[in-house]
Amino acid sequence: MSFAYVARPEKPAWSGVLPGSPQPYFLRKGEGEHAKLFTDTFTVMLSGDETGGQFGMFVANCPTGDVIPAHAHDDTHETFYIVEGRVRVYVQLPDGEKTSRLLGEGDFGFVPAGAAHAYRVEAAARILGAATGGFERFFQQMGTPADTVDMQSPPFVPDMPRMQAAARAHNMRFLPGFEWPEAETP
Amino acid sequence: MSFAYVARPEKPAWSGVLPGSPQPYFLRKGEGEHAKLFTDTFTVMLSGDETGGQFGMFVANCPTGDVIPAHAHDDTHETFYIVEGRVRVYVQLPDGEKTSRLLGEGDFGFVPAGAAHAYRVEAAARILGAATGGFERFFQQMGTPADTVDMQSPPFVPDMPRMQAAARAHNMRFLPGFEWPEAETP
Repeated sequence: MSFAYVARPEKPAWSGVLPGSPQPYFLRKGEGEHAKLFTDTFTVMLSGDETGGQFGMFVANCPTGDVIPAHAHDDTHETFYIVEGRVRVYVQLPDGEKTSRLLGEGDFGFVPAGAAHAYRVEAAARILGAATGGFERFFQQMGTPADTVDMQSPPFVPDMPRMQAAARAHNMRFLPGFEWPEAETP
Repeated sequence: MSFAYVARPEKPAWSGVLPGSPQPYFLRKGEGEHAKLFTDTFTVMLSGDETGGQFGMFVANCPTGDVIPAHAHDDTHETFYIVEGRVRVYVQLPDGEKTSRLLGEGDFGFVPAGAAHAYRVEAAARILGAATGGFERFFQQMGTPADTVDMQSPPFVPDMPRMQAAARAHNMRFLPGFEWPEAETP
């Protein structure tokens, strides 16, 4: 458990905004379960609890320059739909080839379970993700609860035990030293 | 099979744009598997074939005034994320109460499997949907393949056998005569 979390143990403002079971509900823009992780705010709009474990949905608000290094999650299919901004997504193909694509507004990327991938935010972005149910909790487990979409506060840097516990809970492998070719493709 | 489909039996331009198995891929805005259904164009970006049946994703381009009448699908959880425009989503709650919400850009709605729902497009909209895997094919089965997002061509109105076959394939019940209260809530 990280120091920042210990310092603010009360429930975040979003506690209870999702029903936790398959019931209808609506959210206004920016509503949901917020968690800060490094410089990003992740907002869970739908969890596996509402879909019988099928899928969850979240929005990531990410500043320019944000880099998520190479990793893979063997149980989780993940998607990137760019609502605004520009994000370069790197992914390793089944034949081992490494490729990337610069995604802009309305573009889409799919990373299947097990594929090594990474991304770099080239212009401040709002990314909608849908992923295998349960994965949406990763950002809360590795990050720290937040009351709002919060791009101003200092980054939240989890300590190593917190990172490792979140990764273990989602069968995620970080891939230190994994190199991507210089991006020449658009 | 409808007359319009018989008239153009060749493969649509999008044939093969999705891999059909869990492999990485990217799509530019507007790419995907297009189908026209009534006045709307549905673009499948991800199908259950890529996610082991977990979930699919699609974008619906809908003109102002479009109405989708009351229905329910007992096997399918469905979501509405408004990328642009305004859409009033009507849904029946577990206690029988009928409610609605006018959703704008960035707003979100969840309709669990089995819940009666409907929607009305109040300003031309682009709606991103994620739903239980396989449901994304409904729009293709009830509609007709299209080469592009196509808001100009005449509506595609399926004949009754085509509608019934698509509904049967997705355990969908149309609910004729289902009334919604006048919307007073925002």
